[in-house]
Amino acid sequence: MAWIKIIDEENAEDSLKEQYDQLIEPWGGVDNILKIHSLNPESLAAHVKLYKTLMYGKSPLRRTEREMIAVVVSSHNRCYYCMVSHSAAVRKISKDPILGELLVMNYRSADLSDRHLAMLDFAWKLSENPDKITDADREDLRNEGFDEHDIWDISAVASFYNMSNRMASAIDLMPNTGYHQKAR
Amino acid sequence: MAWIKIIDEENAEDSLKEQYDQLIEPWGGVDNILKIHSLNPESLAAHVKLYKTLMYGKSPLRRTEREMIAVVVSSHNRCYYCMVSHSAAVRKISKDPILGELLVMNYRSADLSDRHLAMLDFAWKLSENPDKITDADREDLRNEGFDEHDIWDISAVASFYNMSNRMASAIDLMPNTGYHQKAR
Amino acid sequence: MAWIKIIDEENAEDSLKEQYDQLIEPWGGVDNILKIHSLNPESLAAHVKLYKTLMYGKSPLRRTEREMIAVVVSSHNRCYYCMVSHSAAVRKISKDPILGELLVMNYRSADLSDRHLAMLDFAWKLSENPDKITDADREDLRNEGFDEHDIWDISAVASFYNMSNRMASAIDLMPNTGYHQKAR
Amino acid sequence: MAWIKIIDEENAEDSLKEQYDQLIEPWGGVDNILKIHSLNPESLAAHVKLYKTLMYGKSPLRRTEREMIAVVVSSHNRCYYCMVSHSAAVRKISKDPILGELLVMNYRSADLSDRHLAMLDFAWKLSENPDKITDADREDLRNEGFDEHDIWDISAVASFYNMSNRMASAIDLMPNTGYHQKAR
Amino acid sequence: MAWIKIIDEENAEDSLKEQYDQLIEPWGGVDNILKIHSLNPESLAAHVKLYKTLMYGKSPLRRTEREMIAVVVSSHNRCYYCMVSHSAAVRKISKDPILGELLVMNYRSADLSDRHLAMLDFAWKLSENPDKITDADREDLRNEGFDEHDIWDISAVASFYNMSNRMASAIDLMPNTGYHQKAR
Amino acid sequence: MAWIKIIDEENAEDSLKEQYDQLIEPWGGVDNILKIHSLNPESLAAHVKLYKTLMYGKSPLRRTEREMIAVVVSSHNRCYYCMVSHSAAVRKISKDPILGELLVMNYRSADLSDRHLAMLDFAWKLSENPDKITDADREDLRNEGFDEHDIWDISAVASFYNMSNRMASAIDLMPNTGYHQKAR
Repeated sequence: MAWIKIIDEENAEDSLKEQYDQLIEPWGGVDNILKIHSLNPESLAAHVKLYKTLMYGKSPLRRTEREMIAVVVSSHNRCYYCMVSHSAAVRKISKDPILGELLVMNYRSADLSDRHLAMLDFAWKLSENPDKITDADREDLRNEGFDEHDIWDISAVASFYNMSNRMASAIDLMPNTGYHQKAR
Repeated sequence: MAWIKIIDEENAEDSLKEQYDQLIEPWGGVDNILKIHSLNPESLAAHVKLYKTLMYGKSPLRRTEREMIAVVVSSHNRCYYCMVSHSAAVRKISKDPILGELLVMNYRSADLSDRHLAMLDFAWKLSENPDKITDADREDLRNEGFDEHDIWDISAVASFYNMSNRMASAIDLMPNTGYHQKAR
Repeated sequence: MAWIKIIDEENAEDSLKEQYDQLIEPWGGVDNILKIHSLNPESLAAHVKLYKTLMYGKSPLRRTEREMIAVVVSSHNRCYYCMVSHSAAVRKISKDPILGELLVMNYRSADLSDRHLAMLDFAWKLSENPDKITDADREDLRNEGFDEHDIWDISAVASFYNMSNRMASAIDLMPNTGYHQKAR
Repeated sequence: MAWIKIIDEENAEDSLKEQYDQLIEPWGGVDNILKIHSLNPESLAAHVKLYKTLMYGKSPLRRTEREMIAVVVSSHNRCYYCMVSHSAAVRKISKDPILGELLVMNYRSADLSDRHLAMLDFAWKLSENPDKITDADREDLRNEGFDEHDIWDISAVASFYNMSNRMASAIDLMPNTGYHQKAR
Repeated sequence: MAWIKIIDEENAEDSLKEQYDQLIEPWGGVDNILKIHSLNPESLAAHVKLYKTLMYGKSPLRRTEREMIAVVVSSHNRCYYCMVSHSAAVRKISKDPILGELLVMNYRSADLSDRHLAMLDFAWKLSENPDKITDADREDLRNEGFDEHDIWDISAVASFYNMSNRMASAIDLMPNTGYHQKAR
Repeated sequence: MAWIKIIDEENAEDSLKEQYDQLIEPWGGVDNILKIHSLNPESLAAHVKLYKTLMYGKSPLRRTEREMIAVVVSSHNRCYYCMVSHSAAVRKISKDPILGELLVMNYRSADLSDRHLAMLDFAWKLSENPDKITDADREDLRNEGFDEHDIWDISAVASFYNMSNRMASAIDLMPNTGYHQKAR
């Protein structure tokens, strides 16, 4: 776990308790990344809202594609917490356990469609050199059939994990151990 | 302005119109960074909520300190939009117009307290090498008197701008022109 | 598999057949990294000899320690082949399946002894900036109790994987699929 | 010389003595890089075997080409030992004393054929960013007439020096002084 | 001001006084970057001569173009002194106050002609990776209509600020405060 | 030679001829780096003046020390022209032919005094990350006995070669061939 003081499920009260109740996972607890917000329930609510909108809301991007971006950005930033949890998601949704590992380790080694390769190249560059993104990079996406709404969503997901990765690294957040074996 | 399709103040309807009405600035319009979310009002709401919580909500960090972090992270990522708007905020709140420029250009040239220097060094490293943050870096903050809650908030603000900077760069967002002369 | 032409177990003759016979794994085949040398049996023999000496020969370093270095160097170089095979070895030898993943993703997140952290910091720096290694870095190892022979062996293993990683990346070598589930 | 304990020619016994006897140079001694393996004669034998196979064995690459790769990889890694010894080899084999210096200092300043430039660009990228090598890079080599066997050998030599350079830097190996004036 | 001992206008004598008299600005003093040379009047004279020749002498490049290069190189090197003074010059000469800020923050966000973009891309690369400049980079300039004399002058100005930026950073030079408000 | 048009010794007229006459070397010609300025005799004069002042003028730094800085900065920037000419100068002045090569290849491998190591570490950092120079770096110099004037001169020489290296790389300047054998 992270070093930061956390209010456990059993000690949550009021607004925090209400939120925990809604966030409880099938295994019977709340994810660590949510609990670390416990000192600040408002920020927890906003973080969850943004996460849910981007990862589960309406989007021209499929769920797997959003998780693929999450893993690749987290691989760039070498964020342990996010790689563990989102590679589990990739394994589960794609039913391709090896794909999860490939994206953690080096997406360029994966046997991806040109479309997915372009999507991940953009997410990587936006993570590595955001200042060098120009219209030529967006053009590479358009050439693979992505429209403006797609590009917005790719950018939003990739940007979101550049936040989450740093938050997790800053406070040394550890994943719930259940993720490791999931969908192997 | 960014290349992305935006719904203007006059064409907003329903939930979007409601939000715009609440977000209108003294100069009579809505900030561009908010308008670019117009295709997706839910994501707009979540983004604004998180931004308001982190930058204006309760925190042991003073308003100036949060804006200083915003500018320095944006300087690392060379994000034009965020540097323009948040250096204007630094100029206004701190009443020190030169401080805003120093943080945009190179915070190491500014005549900062050891406390503020440690805070900005941490924000810079979290932006540059999030994977290399270890407890030694948090210890540097503790040595300058920051407690765990402070460290959480420094991390949260720095992480937030690592998201916002990339979003702005990905879609080539331009600031409203009013910011440039503000508080010179 | 890699794009390079490979002589299979069933088509190997003479010196190559002899070597394959000795290198056959419990699952009944020869590892891909060995087969890619099939155009050049002499280079295969030399590569295997060096690998066996460094990883299984007499050394003050324990087997787990050598595999830990192998994974961390491969993580630095983002070599898919070597991370898959050597993290499986770490999982198996250490009987700690999560340790394997931590070293793949970011060894700084693992809960390591100071001794192992120093060992991996040295291996990382030797991979990242070999030109900046000075006696101060060797002194850091000595301070954790490593003697000259230990330092030689840490250096030799880390250097070896800086070769193997590049060879695997250069020819796009894929691991035998059996490694993925091993010792989870 | 390196700080590591070395067994001199006169004190070598048994297997080590046998090997030294075969490795003696025209000037009457054994190269330092070989002597630093003296604590571990098996590793010495494997290292020499691999070196001899790659640098002197059968290959579609000419001897000069292999030495050129050795110097350029060593220049990337700023390895003093390897630059001194292999630039001497380039000077001697190519009978072009200035070429040796150009490759040490910046191969892009040399007046190379397109074929050699492509070969050295590949070796440089494999040293600098092995994780970013893709088939496009191998295609650049094919476009200059290199076939699969050539690419394998270019990769093998470049990878080998990424090992040797680090070994030399890790133990601060100094070249035998005779190399400096050779073939000027 | 910088930490280095400086001889003020009122204490200057002989050759230094003569030079100061010629360098006095409309606001009644001598620029700080000139005064820091006061320990060494000969070096001051040579520095001023080179500066005047490159920035005000005959050249196929317009004055604005030379100032644009000065700002962008200084942005790469994050030199506070040079960004402040030369962005003021850009603002004044171009009568475009926002252009000055864009070049300080990220020239890729500015709405530049292809010609100016090529010019600034060259200046950036020459600052970031001088060793990787090849004829392909000069060809990019020629394709935008720059001839050999233009390329020489672009290179000379960009190189000059790679010197001046480092000198200013090395001695922590602060700009005269008058620059900040100029031509907003 | 560089691609840029150059006026030879025999075709120089007026001011250029006068300057050439004063710059003629013992071997009977003018150095290439001076001749490339021939299109612009004023800039030539200013460049020579600054060079002479910094490298041959009065300074608390010895001649060898200035040449050592020149070589190490040029090694950082991988500038072929400057490494060739200034390593020849180091060889000649120091009467230590191997020192010249060590500084070209990796000054950290040289057996330097703590004082010289600190001086070259500062020159390297000023070349690599001028924006990260702080008073702590100047303090490292002071701890080795350098005073303010020394620091100014170290900075001035290191900065000067960050200009010259880029000028030489930008125009692909080749050294006069006489340098290679000098003082071996």
